[in-house]
Amino acid sequence: MTSPAYEVVGIGNAIVDVLAHADEDQLARLGLAKGVMTLIDAAEAERLYGAMGPGIECSGGSAANTMAGFAALGGRAAYIGKVRDDQLGEVFRHDIRAAGVAFDSPAATEGPATARCLIFVTADAQRTMQTYLGACVELGPEDVNEALVASAAVTYLEGYLWDQPRAKEAFLKAARAAHGAGRKVALSLSDPFCVGRHRESFLELIAGHVDILFANEAEITALYQGTFDEALVQVRGHCEIAALTRSEKGSTVVTADQVIVVGAVTPEALVDTTGAGDLYAAGFLFGLARGLPLAECALLGGVAAAEIISHYGARPEDDLKALAADYIANL
Amino acid sequence: MTSPAYEVVGIGNAIVDVLAHADEDQLARLGLAKGVMTLIDAAEAERLYGAMGPGIECSGGSAANTMAGFAALGGRAAYIGKVRDDQLGEVFRHDIRAAGVAFDSPAATEGPATARCLIFVTADAQRTMQTYLGACVELGPEDVNEALVASAAVTYLEGYLWDQPRAKEAFLKAARAAHGAGRKVALSLSDPFCVGRHRESFLELIAGHVDILFANEAEITALYQGTFDEALVQVRGHCEIAALTRSEKGSTVVTADQVIVVGAVTPEALVDTTGAGDLYAAGFLFGLARGLPLAECALLGGVAAAEIISHYGARPEDDLKALAADYIANL
Repeated sequence: MTSPAYEVVGIGNAIVDVLAHADEDQLARLGLAKGVMTLIDAAEAERLYGAMGPGIECSGGSAANTMAGFAALGGRAAYIGKVRDDQLGEVFRHDIRAAGVAFDSPAATEGPATARCLIFVTADAQRTMQTYLGACVELGPEDVNEALVASAAVTYLEGYLWDQPRAKEAFLKAARAAHGAGRKVALSLSDPFCVGRHRESFLELIAGHVDILFANEAEITALYQGTFDEALVQVRGHCEIAALTRSEKGSTVVTADQVIVVGAVTPEALVDTTGAGDLYAAGFLFGLARGLPLAECALLGGVAAAEIISHYGARPEDDLKALAADYIANL
Repeated sequence: MTSPAYEVVGIGNAIVDVLAHADEDQLARLGLAKGVMTLIDAAEAERLYGAMGPGIECSGGSAANTMAGFAALGGRAAYIGKVRDDQLGEVFRHDIRAAGVAFDSPAATEGPATARCLIFVTADAQRTMQTYLGACVELGPEDVNEALVASAAVTYLEGYLWDQPRAKEAFLKAARAAHGAGRKVALSLSDPFCVGRHRESFLELIAGHVDILFANEAEITALYQGTFDEALVQVRGHCEIAALTRSEKGSTVVTADQVIVVGAVTPEALVDTTGAGDLYAAGFLFGLARGLPLAECALLGGVAAAEIISHYGARPEDDLKALAADYIANL
């Protein structure tokens, strides 16, 4: 086994976020389920965009946010995902590369446009996401560069990929390539509704292919259909490390022989929770890559999540590397 | 003369802004003149975008920002400008309509892409703008709907239009249509370098066509090539009202028989000065439309400018109407 060229490679839906303020009445009027991610088609995307307030666009995508955060912390990250050769695809490619992440997946030259996620942010900083997958449906096993996956210490997969049959194949191909090269596989459960859509196959997937699992309380309890404490007991038999986030209650890390509870990091402001879980994973994986104890990995996850929720959008604005170094120095 | 359907119609370059943080070293390395607006071609736009950090996209354009601010204050505004039928053109159209501004200029179906302004924001909140005009070069007199212009109490023109010969024709056609219907014409000088490029013709334009002039200190002194006090004396003979902004020193309003000096409104934070002048004009014109005394118009300009510089981007995020009402109530 050669030394890894990348510390992590992420595979996910390559999405440009469109963020706008909204109030509860508007969500109700539009028939949107608050706080979750819903898949929509092109016609619904047009209807909702037409009803949405003035927006800002910024690159998103769950695993892509995690890779951008990982690079911002000073790590070596790569990304695999599918955009189209259109303006938003160029924006996505520019932003992830400018963040220091290697991204060479070719753009689709035909078919649907680059994916968009319409994100309605309410005054309580919660986000309600409506995703038009667009070109992401073109992601398939042929996009998984096995040499790239084998060259990364960890392959990080977002649960959202499970919503598309060909992305699922890509996912499995990547997991096999990673394990074949003696690397680790990490998975984020993404969303409680996504878990609900695929519960049985996620359970099999975790038992068979996943070393490091990320989930929030709603996701892990949806997966194991019990209380948080019951889920804790179950998950420890299914993967090596489970890092479970609980918003302002911090996170709990479970391994075969440890349960570590770590408090949350207080954000400067609470503006928009988009990307909180993605950035927690970035911080945690970065700590892991640098050989830190699991409690410090969880703290780094908290630091990165606190930065992202203190502003609009799911990519870091502040100097994450300096924030993390400060935090570690003051432990 | 019928009662105006719109209180203001703005005509300008329809632009999507791409904002990213930058430091002084990066500006120097890229050869950018800090604080000003520079026109660039497609090749230079590609070079600079490639060198730019991760960005966010939001609708911009000087007069468009002013119209969005005017509508956010509760006013009736319309806009004329040229985008292409591409993704960024759709973003521009969505945002200005979602802000409550009427915008029905048809998109160009061929030719260059929707205009982009690459904005490098430094830690001192100053912005350095590199504009690729793209589809804006297609704006011509045929886009000026004379009935629309005649239906608006004020026609607001941005000086940047003077950089393109056909936009200049559109500008003059609109000014004539406005005056023909007994309406007012307002002009913003836009940028000191823009003034430098067109000094003689701006002087003629102001004397012949402009009732209300907006300029900052750098622009008005570039126009009259003297001190601020000398410029004050000269401008009062050339138009009915001149509203001259001086950043943290507030603004000075000059008419034939008055010189009114109004202090600046302190922003909640100083994050990004993009759009400060545009939003000052929005607040000022809104006060004028509602028949407020000139000192209060200038204060409203200050309130709107303070909101815009307290966050990233040049379109209002806070409830400008409520902010303005609070401010007026507490005078």
